[in-house]
Amino acid sequence: MKGAVLYGPRDVRFEERATPQITQSTDAIIRLSATCVCGSDLWPYRGIQRLTEPAPMGHEYCGIVEEVGSAVKRIKSGQFVIGSFFASDNTCPACQIGYQSSCQHLQPVIGAQAPVLRVPLADGTLVATQDRPAQGLIPSLLAVSDVMGTGWFAADAANVKPGCTVAVVGDGAVGLLAVLSAKLMGAERIIAMSRHETRQKLAQEFGATDIVAERGAAGVARIMELTRGVGADSVLECVGTRESMMQAIEATRRGGYVGYVGVPHGVELDADGLFFTHVHLHGGPAPVRRYLPKLIDLVLSEKIKPGKVFDLTLPLERVAEGYRAMDERRAIKALLQP
Amino acid sequence: MKGAVLYGPRDVRFEERATPQITQSTDAIIRLSATCVCGSDLWPYRGIQRLTEPAPMGHEYCGIVEEVGSAVKRIKSGQFVIGSFFASDNTCPACQIGYQSSCQHLQPVIGAQAPVLRVPLADGTLVATQDRPAQGLIPSLLAVSDVMGTGWFAADAANVKPGCTVAVVGDGAVGLLAVLSAKLMGAERIIAMSRHETRQKLAQEFGATDIVAERGAAGVARIMELTRGVGADSVLECVGTRESMMQAIEATRRGGYVGYVGVPHGVELDADGLFFTHVHLHGGPAPVRRYLPKLIDLVLSEKIKPGKVFDLTLPLERVAEGYRAMDERRAIKALLQP
Repeated sequence: MKGAVLYGPRDVRFEERATPQITQSTDAIIRLSATCVCGSDLWPYRGIQRLTEPAPMGHEYCGIVEEVGSAVKRIKSGQFVIGSFFASDNTCPACQIGYQSSCQHLQPVIGAQAPVLRVPLADGTLVATQDRPAQGLIPSLLAVSDVMGTGWFAADAANVKPGCTVAVVGDGAVGLLAVLSAKLMGAERIIAMSRHETRQKLAQEFGATDIVAERGAAGVARIMELTRGVGADSVLECVGTRESMMQAIEATRRGGYVGYVGVPHGVELDADGLFFTHVHLHGGPAPVRRYLPKLIDLVLSEKIKPGKVFDLTLPLERVAEGYRAMDERRAIKALLQP
Repeated sequence: MKGAVLYGPRDVRFEERATPQITQSTDAIIRLSATCVCGSDLWPYRGIQRLTEPAPMGHEYCGIVEEVGSAVKRIKSGQFVIGSFFASDNTCPACQIGYQSSCQHLQPVIGAQAPVLRVPLADGTLVATQDRPAQGLIPSLLAVSDVMGTGWFAADAANVKPGCTVAVVGDGAVGLLAVLSAKLMGAERIIAMSRHETRQKLAQEFGATDIVAERGAAGVARIMELTRGVGADSVLECVGTRESMMQAIEATRRGGYVGYVGVPHGVELDADGLFFTHVHLHGGPAPVRRYLPKLIDLVLSEKIKPGKVFDLTLPLERVAEGYRAMDERRAIKALLQP
């Protein structure tokens, strides 16, 4: 089969790879219905995260099970399944309290920008739907695999409650779906920070009540103005830079909550300053597995359409074009059809 | 009157100071029943926190109201009162959600190592008892003014719940009272980190079930061993150094809680590492005012005796001896009798 392999900065190739096979008795092999490019794929694509060797890319997926290993009991061939970017056993102490992305037997899912994918720990990782979903629901089910689950975790980690005021830092797919998540959790006011018109519009469609185009100190000042000098109850950090973290912490009311899901790259936090802000800080790689059953139900019942973040659809062989469009911010997120 | 003034490293003088008077209409003047030396007083005493001029010391207090300003409505002369080290209006948005130590009109209380003290924002800051308490309860009521309230906040910020496993980093008065707080909140297992026999004993008296004498990586390894490789549900950080913060974060289970109340001094936190631990981080200067009514009740009904942390009692004029004993760790905490 052919799949996407990253060789170095801005060098994604669609090339021949060995078709995945069962290597552990707990594996499943899935034929993908759709896959996509993630914002986090752009870190190595831009050379900020260094590669030591060519890397098969992609970790978002849904599709039909083709084969399962001998130890797989729950997942069966022919089922439509969705999983997270981290494989987890779903039985260890971390999984049992809902932190499957800190599973004691955690394994990354690698190489999903391809027609066929091997998923480790299939019973713990995959959630099957009762029936095969309609084609039109595929983008939204795919979004649940990472960006929707991550946006939901940002809102959950930031303690979003009915009636509260939320600010979202970051207008990528995760930030936009963090807006949708906050809306679903009953936030009364949702301030989206974005300077891109198409993203502002989607944020508003997902439930944003206010848009702040300013960044850094000016962005914080604007949020303070909008909240009468108090700050937001919950701030959802969906970028991962020092600037965005500080912006999130400073925009939060004293005693409020920051949920951070942007993977930090070289961020040092000043604990002396943090101490006096009284914010609650929680985040990390989203435990998407915890939320899959609920989010899949919301998609199947058409209560949410997170697939709207895909504003570019390409055949899989044009994957490099998807990276380019996202890198240049011409597209929010590129869906790839195998 | 005479009170304690710090002139520089290890130079505390008991000298003539102007007797405090009402300067704002919201002030109260209190004749202190007892006062004490705080672990945080040792930062400037040791020269780690620099002074620009001689500083009147002390911020823990309880006593009889002598006079109130014209705008004070709730607090009256003759009442026995306890307050926090931060004066707060108890009406602003931060106060209303229970973060009085982030009050929009926050003022420090200064100069409590003296017979008489001015407390700003008296109505918001002070809590009066119905009757004058018995003399034997004074040390425990004094402890509520800071160290007991701070230990309680550490446990509250670390989400201590019935049945959970707690670890406490730091065996000063706050750490020991964090043990007592965790016990009161129903923790099943409480691991106190201490290498001092007298402090270990008091920790056990307050409810510690395990003692870990190791520090740093060895201390974390021991906690992991005691928790079958999972980590503690809640870790209470009561020191404020980078080493103690890292020890706390690393000893916490994935998805667990760190409550930090040790004032950080030059601590930088690696957000990249923190991200993958999945810990919840919350802390800051304790909002003691939030807890005063409850903690005073617990003392008056003799359900708790936090005053046990005072293992040295001195007449106020020997205040310098109290600093020395605490600096040399010969005493946990020195009570001063005006």
